[in-house]
Amino acid sequence: MITKKEYEQARQETLKRFREAGIRVTPEEAERIEVADFGLSNLPEIGLEILTYVNTEKVCAKEMVLFPGQTCPEHIHVDGPGYEGKEETFRVRRGKVYLYVSGEPTPDIQAKMPPSKVTVFHEIVLTEGQQYTLYPRTLHWFQGGPEGAIVSEFSTRSRDESDIFTDPAISRLPEIGE
Amino acid sequence: MITKKEYEQARQETLKRFREAGIRVTPEEAERIEVADFGLSNLPEIGLEILTYVNTEKVCAKEMVLFPGQTCPEHIHVDGPGYEGKEETFRVRRGKVYLYVSGEPTPDIQAKMPPSKVTVFHEIVLTEGQQYTLYPRTLHWFQGGPEGAIVSEFSTRSRDESDIFTDPAISRLPEIGE
Repeated sequence: MITKKEYEQARQETLKRFREAGIRVTPEEAERIEVADFGLSNLPEIGLEILTYVNTEKVCAKEMVLFPGQTCPEHIHVDGPGYEGKEETFRVRRGKVYLYVSGEPTPDIQAKMPPSKVTVFHEIVLTEGQQYTLYPRTLHWFQGGPEGAIVSEFSTRSRDESDIFTDPAISRLPEIGE
Repeated sequence: MITKKEYEQARQETLKRFREAGIRVTPEEAERIEVADFGLSNLPEIGLEILTYVNTEKVCAKEMVLFPGQTCPEHIHVDGPGYEGKEETFRVRRGKVYLYVSGEPTPDIQAKMPPSKVTVFHEIVLTEGQQYTLYPRTLHWFQGGPEGAIVSEFSTRSRDESDIFTDPAISRLPEIGE
């Protein structure tokens, strides 16, 4: 859970980073930025800030912000009734992202170990203008570099509620308290 | 057909507009910017500059540039064997776009009439941060405003070779001459 104050601070920081990167959003979009703490109440270390531009039955596009060292915890997009798991491309617009997927573990990974459970360590480092496509049913987690990051996501439909997280303490849907 | 010189000028102008907007691209991407004149040999009036970030079986994302008053001519994305026509969302990053789709014709449209055949006149004007989703089998054309525009496209797979243009003089696949 995050407090209303934490939510508002994270939202403002996200908007500031969009402005600095020249990313223009409408006033309505600025109001509906999502701040996900994944239920761990540790937003600086485990969290993600998200503006979803569009999410139709077929296509989703988002702009995401990672604060410095902030981790989106390990998860997988599974198949559901009548649909395949999400396919997603991450394109780094600003900063650096450490991305980890299933495969040969990279020795001495560059990310700091997050406080949530992770099990895959094949490292992909993405800097500005670089991107990576994750096909369905790929375990992954990612972390913002020392300056944080802005990442565009281009994907099939997002069904965040059906993501499966490695750490059983995580819940995806945000709760905001007083 | 465009000449190599026209291609190179349009590519450089596209990169300049990306730089001014803070859009970072890799050297490899800078080399493969597509300049489409749709076979009409009139790039300032009929054309589109395109950087395709990703185009998988399911998802496509592009950054497109329209020079001032430049028109992407009227076309439709039709169904093919085993797939539905393309669904696409246009999000304006810089400048202004005049978009026309089938539906109630708008009196006194803001675009100037292009030199290629157009038949739909339901106007949608998009400025920075605004977007519009086109579902399959929707006739459409669009034109850059007085300052030109940068437009992100988020869509299902692009199959440009199967687009159907209203103007029979048009061919989508680019030809570059001497």
